[in-house]
Amino acid sequence: MVDVVLNGEILKTVSKAMVSLVSEARFHFKEEGLHSRAVDPANVAMVIVDVPSSSFIKYESEGDFVAGVDVNRIFDISKSIKNDDVVEMTINEESFIVKFGSVKYSVSLIDPSAIRKEPRIPQIDLPAKIVMDAGEFKKAIVAADKISDHVVFRTNEEGFFIEAEGDVDRITFSLSDAELAEFNRQEAKSMFSLEYLKEFVKIASSGDVLTIRLGNDYPVRMVFEVAGGKVRVEYILAPRIEAE
Amino acid sequence: MVDVVLNGEILKTVSKAMVSLVSEARFHFKEEGLHSRAVDPANVAMVIVDVPSSSFIKYESEGDFVAGVDVNRIFDISKSIKNDDVVEMTINEESFIVKFGSVKYSVSLIDPSAIRKEPRIPQIDLPAKIVMDAGEFKKAIVAADKISDHVVFRTNEEGFFIEAEGDVDRITFSLSDAELAEFNRQEAKSMFSLEYLKEFVKIASSGDVLTIRLGNDYPVRMVFEVAGGKVRVEYILAPRIEAE
Amino acid sequence: MVDVVLNGEILKTVSKAMVSLVSEARFHFKEEGLHSRAVDPANVAMVIVDVPSSSFIKYESEGDFVAGVDVNRIFDISKSIKNDDVVEMTINEESFIVKFGSVKYSVSLIDPSAIRKEPRIPQIDLPAKIVMDAGEFKKAIVAADKISDHVVFRTNEEGFFIEAEGDVDRITFSLSDAELAEFNRQEAKSMFSLEYLKEFVKIASSGDVLTIRLGNDYPVRMVFEVAGGKVRVEYILAPRIEAE
Repeated sequence: MVDVVLNGEILKTVSKAMVSLVSEARFHFKEEGLHSRAVDPANVAMVIVDVPSSSFIKYESEGDFVAGVDVNRIFDISKSIKNDDVVEMTINEESFIVKFGSVKYSVSLIDPSAIRKEPRIPQIDLPAKIVMDAGEFKKAIVAADKISDHVVFRTNEEGFFIEAEGDVDRITFSLSDAELAEFNRQEAKSMFSLEYLKEFVKIASSGDVLTIRLGNDYPVRMVFEVAGGKVRVEYILAPRIEAE
Repeated sequence: MVDVVLNGEILKTVSKAMVSLVSEARFHFKEEGLHSRAVDPANVAMVIVDVPSSSFIKYESEGDFVAGVDVNRIFDISKSIKNDDVVEMTINEESFIVKFGSVKYSVSLIDPSAIRKEPRIPQIDLPAKIVMDAGEFKKAIVAADKISDHVVFRTNEEGFFIEAEGDVDRITFSLSDAELAEFNRQEAKSMFSLEYLKEFVKIASSGDVLTIRLGNDYPVRMVFEVAGGKVRVEYILAPRIEAE
Repeated sequence: MVDVVLNGEILKTVSKAMVSLVSEARFHFKEEGLHSRAVDPANVAMVIVDVPSSSFIKYESEGDFVAGVDVNRIFDISKSIKNDDVVEMTINEESFIVKFGSVKYSVSLIDPSAIRKEPRIPQIDLPAKIVMDAGEFKKAIVAADKISDHVVFRTNEEGFFIEAEGDVDRITFSLSDAELAEFNRQEAKSMFSLEYLKEFVKIASSGDVLTIRLGNDYPVRMVFEVAGGKVRVEYILAPRIEAE
């Protein structure tokens, strides 16, 4: 039995982050807070969502509680919730109940054992670290998606570059050391599919902090601190390796 | 011959209300004002629109004048009219002329005798009376429409409930006695098709007054006072009876 | 080699004007400024765009420089540019480079000799001259397009009239002498295809100046002064002649 109260923005963000990769997921209500993670069916990307208990208005969970959630449904209902709505969620063995204003929405839970096993979070060491505005990153991804289906992330002494190349055109986003919130000047380069990245950036807004860890032809880790810093969403995306 | 001047909002509302059920209708210009009513082709719902002459800026009608109107056309042109535009309508034997700003729009009338006969307004006695904000009602209908194709309206001693049930989820809107503008605490329950309700609520905005009369497996009457109280739109909708 | 700096609004307007008729065009960078013109594949309409060098923030061009431009591409990228963005364009023998903020967008040029020859601007004498607000003209065209595929422009002693006629409805825009910024009271009348006009008005906003020159069953010339007067776009459109 779980009984929590939270801002609408948090529920909207969590469901949007999960729905970008899967339609069903396990929501773990632990003492520290809400945790959920999943890999997409193609095993190319992972999402890890954490909402610390201190980000909730009220947080009551009996021990560790695991709920099997139809994230499509929760995402759908979250569209009619406003960012500053106060939302109460009650989860028992059978149903997930969401209340806001005069609305009570109740959805059946899924047996957690029927949901695909959760991935282990890989321990990977990635040399380059970039901290930047998530809204700027979003703009770059949205523009790159118009001309290509993949993108190169590259760092060198000077800064961070996002490059996309179409048949006749090419677009480059340059963020010099001075324009980044933090940058360790390590050199790295990997290519990624825009199909995934364009889904990931949907949670990002201008003002949110994004931390990127990048290697050479290695997965990238992107940690978004969103919903006023109350939700942490990490995406790990495998590189796309191609003869150039 | 009819010559009237009115706010754009009134024309927009009247055409939106009629177009929700029919594509052709008789507009009666009487001494008391404009009246129109129609049933949908399936005989499931009725709309009754009244605009008292005092809601017009100018109202001149020679005796009782009946115009056969292509409501699709009037609805279409009303989209380019703004709420606070001053609109002049002139109707003679052949055409319906709408003027606003530098625009003169003229549409041929339809022979009233070619339009389906108008329904008699049924005299039905419905025990429960609920007066509430039309915008709240609209929100409930829009959300219910996402998970089901029908909805249950229910009253009991405590308040008014709108319930929809999908395959795996269920949504309830609870409006307690205290949250309603008026409520006679009578018990009633009927089921209705969302296909119709979602069309009806298009005229509703937050702040408009909605009066609902409800019975047991009986039609519902919903009176919307819209366009700043200048237009009265009543919908009567037959119940959907199903083994539950 | 061309190196210019300009407001985003100017680039957006120029590309929108050209893309309304062609997908490829020659951009001439001359001492006086940027010039481009083209006819549509059906030879029905011509567009002539001029941006004087004084409308640029910086304007450097070595002699007369001609660039073969994929206007679809430039139009597409211009959608992500804001009106008040400062944009740098560098054009060398091979590529057209557009920089704004941290974005560098580079597109290959087209061999100018592969682009359809530019039209000669016809010298036609048109008796009626109307100067009016381009936004009003746009409204009339957008509304007329809903009921017909062609429109009549007509002037007489009293003013300027735009008339469209559908199967059962007719719409007239009347602009009296007093409502026009300038009008020489000459009589003229021609019919034009809305297919073209609705594309042309996309560059127009309320407050922009539009000068129309009209004859009898003759082409119309429409000069739009847009982007705060910094861009001049002229459209010449052949009449549609039909038995009425």
